[in-house]
Amino acid sequence: MSGDVYGTNDQKAAARAWFEALRDRLCAELEKIEDEVRGPAKDFGPPGHFVRTPWLRKGIEGDGGTMAVLRGRVFEKAGVNVSTVAGEFSEEFRARIPGATQDPRFWASGVSVVKNPRSPKVPIAHMNTRFIVTTKGWFGGGADLTPVFPLAGDTADFHAALKAACDRFDPAWYARFKKWCDEYFYLPHRGEARGVGGIFYDELAGGDFARDFAFTQAVGEAFLDVYPRLARRHLDESWTEADRQVQLIKRGRYVEFNLLYDRGTLFGLKTGGNTEAILMSLPPLTAWP
Amino acid sequence: MSGDVYGTNDQKAAARAWFEALRDRLCAELEKIEDEVRGPAKDFGPPGHFVRTPWLRKGIEGDGGTMAVLRGRVFEKAGVNVSTVAGEFSEEFRARIPGATQDPRFWASGVSVVKNPRSPKVPIAHMNTRFIVTTKGWFGGGADLTPVFPLAGDTADFHAALKAACDRFDPAWYARFKKWCDEYFYLPHRGEARGVGGIFYDELAGGDFARDFAFTQAVGEAFLDVYPRLARRHLDESWTEADRQVQLIKRGRYVEFNLLYDRGTLFGLKTGGNTEAILMSLPPLTAWP
Repeated sequence: MSGDVYGTNDQKAAARAWFEALRDRLCAELEKIEDEVRGPAKDFGPPGHFVRTPWLRKGIEGDGGTMAVLRGRVFEKAGVNVSTVAGEFSEEFRARIPGATQDPRFWASGVSVVKNPRSPKVPIAHMNTRFIVTTKGWFGGGADLTPVFPLAGDTADFHAALKAACDRFDPAWYARFKKWCDEYFYLPHRGEARGVGGIFYDELAGGDFARDFAFTQAVGEAFLDVYPRLARRHLDESWTEADRQVQLIKRGRYVEFNLLYDRGTLFGLKTGGNTEAILMSLPPLTAWP
Repeated sequence: MSGDVYGTNDQKAAARAWFEALRDRLCAELEKIEDEVRGPAKDFGPPGHFVRTPWLRKGIEGDGGTMAVLRGRVFEKAGVNVSTVAGEFSEEFRARIPGATQDPRFWASGVSVVKNPRSPKVPIAHMNTRFIVTTKGWFGGGADLTPVFPLAGDTADFHAALKAACDRFDPAWYARFKKWCDEYFYLPHRGEARGVGGIFYDELAGGDFARDFAFTQAVGEAFLDVYPRLARRHLDESWTEADRQVQLIKRGRYVEFNLLYDRGTLFGLKTGGNTEAILMSLPPLTAWP
């Protein structure tokens, strides 16, 4: 526990700026993949570009976000949201949120990305990180991979990238956050994991803002590095209608997870968040045959 | 309050038998529509038939149900479930269930049907009725219509059929149960109704088993009469790709409702119900474009 005060205006500004910069880099990288593709995705029209839609919560300046959605040829639908909101937790939430019983006001900023590739051979992926300030302050987030047809090499590379990010901060974190991810992204009603995991962490408050922020940045950087490598690896592969059907069913599981269990989704929908932005994570086409 | 004891074995057997008979008649009627169709649905292959799959909860005889699913040319996916289960409510549920605080044991039997037509011109529909016995006993259920393109005539006919069923029992019921339906099948995060309503009722325990059971039968009969009429009315109409896309999006709203709010779905998934049977209600193909 080093002596940083957690939640100053400078820290908020720095976190927000970093989330927005990561958004810009994620968008640029996905657009680059859309441009350079030489494989079967070429048949699905021109390269896609992100369309950004800003929104304000309750019409209040500085309390809202920007939804960026790409509908392209490699990525049937990819969304990157940034939001920075301030408000008061309702009675319902106060007891469950660190530091909110003394004072219900909060400030939160974050970035989230969900990629739904057109090809069933290119893995679905999700990443989000956030900085929340009440009378306490903490970072949370995670990244996980949901391949339709899991491959040991992809899974190993994805986990290795996240492990390297964790190991620079604490040798115990990767194992802990991987387990947390496995437990979190699990569908009990199906007895199935959502995908092949990754890491998940919340209420990361060692009391050292600089270290916690640096870790969240490392997670973002790791994802920005590894996911495009995995996507490019499979861009030249063809797929069958049967592969596509397996993909649409897998996407249905993703919908089940997000609407039944995902804390961020349920929290956002119950606290007057932007519905279109929150549900941007839902896949473009889904089957429950 | 007449003097019937509520929840005798004879009552349970009668309710169960009736739910199963209604299932048989619903299945037969939908198969008849599949057979007789002369409109555009003809292009989608041979007439569909229901495939029945029995299941047991925890492998216990007499504690389970039968899922019946038709994948056809008029009905892209239609499911009719009957189930009869017995068990104990967990601590979490006891306080919220009438008569369960004194004794957590319950018995429940019911039928539910969800129809997802292939044509966007044929309305989606849902009906379910159930009989639940704890230390108390009551009926619940409802029926609602979700047209992709609502038509005043269809809506009027659907409501008139349900109103007629209600009016035979109590002149106040239709207005009360219609309002309950409008409030229940509402998506607050979208600010949208799920469809054009119908009726919804729960904990119907006037203390008169014979009357309550007769009402639930009347609701089932009304649905069995009116829905096939509405479906047949639109079977010869063609549709466009744009109509289909509107349908896939409307189906997405249905998914959102069922996974975020529907009590039966959430209750079933949390109490070890049969996942395939519970989620049979989810549409065959859905879009969040």
